[in-house]
Amino acid sequence: MELKNRKIAIAGLGLIGGSLAKAFRKYCGCGVAGFDRDPAVLKAALACGAVTRAGTGRDLRGADLLCLCLYPGAAADFVEKHLGDIRPGCVVTDTCGVKAAVCRRLAPLAERGGFVFVGGHPMAGTEKRGFAASDADLFRGASCVLTPCGAPQSAVDLLKAAAGALGFGRVVLTTPEEHDRRIAFTSQLPHALACAYVMSPQCPRHAGFSGGSYRDVSRVANLNEALWAELFLENRGALVQELDRLTQNLTRIRNAVAAQDAETLRALLRRGRKIKEELRE
Amino acid sequence: MELKNRKIAIAGLGLIGGSLAKAFRKYCGCGVAGFDRDPAVLKAALACGAVTRAGTGRDLRGADLLCLCLYPGAAADFVEKHLGDIRPGCVVTDTCGVKAAVCRRLAPLAERGGFVFVGGHPMAGTEKRGFAASDADLFRGASCVLTPCGAPQSAVDLLKAAAGALGFGRVVLTTPEEHDRRIAFTSQLPHALACAYVMSPQCPRHAGFSGGSYRDVSRVANLNEALWAELFLENRGALVQELDRLTQNLTRIRNAVAAQDAETLRALLRRGRKIKEELRE
Repeated sequence: MELKNRKIAIAGLGLIGGSLAKAFRKYCGCGVAGFDRDPAVLKAALACGAVTRAGTGRDLRGADLLCLCLYPGAAADFVEKHLGDIRPGCVVTDTCGVKAAVCRRLAPLAERGGFVFVGGHPMAGTEKRGFAASDADLFRGASCVLTPCGAPQSAVDLLKAAAGALGFGRVVLTTPEEHDRRIAFTSQLPHALACAYVMSPQCPRHAGFSGGSYRDVSRVANLNEALWAELFLENRGALVQELDRLTQNLTRIRNAVAAQDAETLRALLRRGRKIKEELRE
Repeated sequence: MELKNRKIAIAGLGLIGGSLAKAFRKYCGCGVAGFDRDPAVLKAALACGAVTRAGTGRDLRGADLLCLCLYPGAAADFVEKHLGDIRPGCVVTDTCGVKAAVCRRLAPLAERGGFVFVGGHPMAGTEKRGFAASDADLFRGASCVLTPCGAPQSAVDLLKAAAGALGFGRVVLTTPEEHDRRIAFTSQLPHALACAYVMSPQCPRHAGFSGGSYRDVSRVANLNEALWAELFLENRGALVQELDRLTQNLTRIRNAVAAQDAETLRALLRRGRKIKEELRE
């Protein structure tokens, strides 16, 4: 599918929106109209060629693809505010880390506005944030999750073609609910964990006594608390379940250590090791 | 300090012992006598030049430095078995992940045998194991923790010089007890955590829904359960304390999510973010 002549609009030029803009420019040569509430970010994006235009209502009326790279609530708010401008038939997608809450608000808006909504979640990121950290190659090899919820195949095909062109390694189609259950484990739990981990009074004294395992577990503690609090609360059922499971399993290990029960401890660690080994990734 | 003419003996040619042997050969040009209970490992180490000799009692009688790269209990057992062979004045060190338990057994043996013992813990490793994964550059930039416990300065100086030559980035001197408290947080807790994390029923279905944070938290679940059970049990007081702290902090986050208390949740996540930010590493 030829992407070069497609008109792209991107709302929110943070780490993900900025990286998408740069990737569309670098790999597809598309014109990209960028929206951002911060004029300095827009200026920076224009100056480095990440976007070709500061977005206006006219850009929304002409766009083939609108990417909402905002917090979950803000993404729906943006569409609500610009509903009259979004071209009927336009494919709208988002990049939020929760899908059920976003799809619940976007589906009726899509119906009212006559556009097509396909939820999206690029499984890429870093512990850095903002446009300054954006990178055209952020998505290379990453997974792109899409939740079509009955959208026409042509819209899914457009997003698949874009994902391929931007360097994603795979596209996974699923339901918003299944996405949220899995992401509670793969992404939200590690972020909650990292924050809880660094709260130990031992943490500030780690220097000289730490290697890769400290670095890896603590890395994503450097999160954006406003965004992650919203993501956690929008997926609270699944996240609470994962937190409870983790606490139970940690407690099993804790009790075996406290009881000096070497056999049970080895069996628990062996179970973890075997699960990890069998996954090979 | 010239290391080239020093005679090195290494007991245990696994990941750490094998890497030490290779590093002594590559960076110091020392003769290295290797001991391993597995003849195939010894053969492989000789074949690739990681060691210059299969170790014998004569090598222990001539060694300037003996590195015990074995499990904690096995390290002390090796010294007990070869006590009559270890040259009086020889500097003996180990690479075990716990120090109080090792120093407690080695200190009286050092007195009986007339050698000098300085506990050591290279803060380096990988989730791979065994001689096949050993690498002369494993220690580059890593921290080397030493617990001298009153050993003569000349012995500490020899180990500092060796650490510098082998590529360690820093040497930290501390007590066995302080080492064990810190390591409970920086290394043992992430390993316990990784095992508990992958026990979620969601884990085997992570593919396509995971990025860096899943990969980082789960990485060290691929551990050697016999070794880590021994390390956990030899440091159970400090580890149980860290596990309890982590569980408490996880529960705070969990309760804020379950109660939909956005303000408390943001405050908890902000606290984690600020701790991590201030550490800058």
